[in-house]
Amino acid sequence: MSIQKPKGTQDLLPGEIEKWQYVEAKARELCARFNYKEIRTPVFEHTELFQRGVGETTDIVEKEMYTFLDKGDRSISLRPEGTAGVVRAYVENKLYGEPDVNKLYYIGPMFRYEQPQAGRYRQFHQFGIEAFGSQDPAIDAEVIALGYTFYKELGLKEVTVEINSVGNPAVRAAYREHIQRFFAPVKDKLCKDCQSRFDRNPMRILDCKIDQKYGEGAPTIVEHLDEECSTHFQAVQNYLTAMDIPFRLNPRLVRGLDYYTHTAFEYKAGGIGAIDTIGGGGRYNGLVGQIGGQDQPGVGLGLGMERILLVLQAQGVDIPVPKPLDVYLVALGEAAEQACVKLLHDLRLAGLKAEKDYLGRKIKAQMKSADRYKAAYVAILGDDELARGEITVKAMATGEQETVALDAFVQTMQSRSRHV
Amino acid sequence: MSIQKPKGTQDLLPGEIEKWQYVEAKARELCARFNYKEIRTPVFEHTELFQRGVGETTDIVEKEMYTFLDKGDRSISLRPEGTAGVVRAYVENKLYGEPDVNKLYYIGPMFRYEQPQAGRYRQFHQFGIEAFGSQDPAIDAEVIALGYTFYKELGLKEVTVEINSVGNPAVRAAYREHIQRFFAPVKDKLCKDCQSRFDRNPMRILDCKIDQKYGEGAPTIVEHLDEECSTHFQAVQNYLTAMDIPFRLNPRLVRGLDYYTHTAFEYKAGGIGAIDTIGGGGRYNGLVGQIGGQDQPGVGLGLGMERILLVLQAQGVDIPVPKPLDVYLVALGEAAEQACVKLLHDLRLAGLKAEKDYLGRKIKAQMKSADRYKAAYVAILGDDELARGEITVKAMATGEQETVALDAFVQTMQSRSRHV
Repeated sequence: MSIQKPKGTQDLLPGEIEKWQYVEAKARELCARFNYKEIRTPVFEHTELFQRGVGETTDIVEKEMYTFLDKGDRSISLRPEGTAGVVRAYVENKLYGEPDVNKLYYIGPMFRYEQPQAGRYRQFHQFGIEAFGSQDPAIDAEVIALGYTFYKELGLKEVTVEINSVGNPAVRAAYREHIQRFFAPVKDKLCKDCQSRFDRNPMRILDCKIDQKYGEGAPTIVEHLDEECSTHFQAVQNYLTAMDIPFRLNPRLVRGLDYYTHTAFEYKAGGIGAIDTIGGGGRYNGLVGQIGGQDQPGVGLGLGMERILLVLQAQGVDIPVPKPLDVYLVALGEAAEQACVKLLHDLRLAGLKAEKDYLGRKIKAQMKSADRYKAAYVAILGDDELARGEITVKAMATGEQETVALDAFVQTMQSRSRHV
Repeated sequence: MSIQKPKGTQDLLPGEIEKWQYVEAKARELCARFNYKEIRTPVFEHTELFQRGVGETTDIVEKEMYTFLDKGDRSISLRPEGTAGVVRAYVENKLYGEPDVNKLYYIGPMFRYEQPQAGRYRQFHQFGIEAFGSQDPAIDAEVIALGYTFYKELGLKEVTVEINSVGNPAVRAAYREHIQRFFAPVKDKLCKDCQSRFDRNPMRILDCKIDQKYGEGAPTIVEHLDEECSTHFQAVQNYLTAMDIPFRLNPRLVRGLDYYTHTAFEYKAGGIGAIDTIGGGGRYNGLVGQIGGQDQPGVGLGLGMERILLVLQAQGVDIPVPKPLDVYLVALGEAAEQACVKLLHDLRLAGLKAEKDYLGRKIKAQMKSADRYKAAYVAILGDDELARGEITVKAMATGEQETVALDAFVQTMQSRSRHV
């Protein structure tokens, strides 16, 4: 019996992996332009980190984590999201002592034990950025702009930005009461999740797809912002306008995680049905202190890689394919075979993408193989040609053939490759 | 109390991460030239995969795996190495049905619960390649050549290749008896591990550092190869010689894993003390069948990233640093601040690496920040200049200053950046 991959995971194979490489390279390149530096934290952390950093009463921590004891009886969890680990590393490595704003990005696997469905996996992948140390609304706007630019440069269509302010803790505490008062009369009619949210986190009732009808006319947090919050929120909007980032105010946007303060935002894309959110983030001014550092403001975003690939696919966006082989070498005869191994290696050392047959196939099958690889040139070496010090080079696009001196072969292919 | 990273793991931070990015980019670029395509398999697999694919009696599987039950009561393990998962994916996705040799590479985290020490972590990272479907000794040589070229192009010094043939199963079975006969008289003097190896896997006694003295004069497997094995091994050597890959025969090289057949090899580097092995691999013709596929030959290598970085450090090899900032923008005044957010975004959209202050610092502190980032230019915009439609640009290398029209600013910086 053969062994299968674990339920809810996937193998990323050649043919598909090139899309991932492209999307990741774009993320890295964009982060370089925006001056975000990569950070990598461990794939697992002490479970307590996520209890503190994601929230003990969240679905993620209550139901969805891969938690286990290691051989030293420590409770360890595979990371269910990226921010908590980055905050932990920021605190533990005292990055707050650096003179400039810490602007970090990560790309990597995350793990949640959820029911697998289209575009949702138990091992999934996120690209995220975090900026620590600044209260400046310009950096909220920068974070939003980076995500928007990422989608646009990838070629995603109909990308919209929704933003809201979820206030500071004082504003949220007051607003919580407004919301509870509003929903109290219909509390018994709310879905089971929302009945439980009513006490624990009533703001999230506004986010519920099922109870949308009861939420109409609910007070919005924006109406209850204090001056500090309003000023911050207005400044974020002004900066987005200055950068030509189109956005829409969505007073119901509260995000799934509890740690956001001030700015909260989401990206949506067209053409992919009802679940159109493709990423989001916000400011989290209390989180660093909560995880155990001296308090420092933070703002960040997280984008799901699987979701991005789904949208690219659904919208029919073309992704550039890597350059195919420069040369496919065909050897005819035993001496030629030996010589080709050397030529192949020399081509590669010279920077070319080159390949030969390893299955002892006849010339016709080798030519087919070269075709499958979309090789620009096929070079054919027989024992006779080898004896004469020559090799035949065929341009696959035109069918043109020529004879090249063996000792000029690598250089010739190199100059051809530059002009492809 | 703040939370620490789990024991034996590390945070890779800016300053260090650039080395990882460089080494990984080199691996990817080299794989493209050698026509290896990336594959990504899940970070965890069913435990049974590693029992079958690594070996139930190996230290890795017996003592070092992170094994746990998921919420569906499946026994899951974090992968302790890369090959088993790739073989599983090769079988499950029926890649053996493809007409060409499957040449795959992976880069990613692996996990072993070992005592942490210099260069050894519980989460570590490997770059590996696997080629499936060919018996051709030329591909053994190619795999060895790829690893060697990787080290050389990274700038590692004193890299040597050691190779051996560990034969086919028949040869190994016969050789096993020779070895047992040889060690039988000193069996009681061997270390505890080797006494247990005596029955289970006597060839590995040759690999033991402690019992080296007893191994002198032991029969080597090379002396007992049959014709098929000798021919294969000789061909690998001929190809390596043709490619100018220096190598040394090491008849004691058997590698830690049991699945190797025919070619086994290791890379060593100078200047890092006794534990000088920096990578290795071999042919594993029985492994695919063992994991549950129709039998297919395979050959591959695995290189430890942490080890490579250690050697680069120890040998004082310089690694190219990423291009620093093109422009650092300084705003003086409130209107200028707003305008700079827009200019900053425009610079980034134009492909430049650009940054500004987000901490409300005075101009002097901002200039220091620009210095830390090694910005090529600082552009200073005051409210007055903004009103005149101008901006001051200072080249940090020369100190030269000039005034540029605001609407030509991005284009000017773009053309400067191309000439840096």
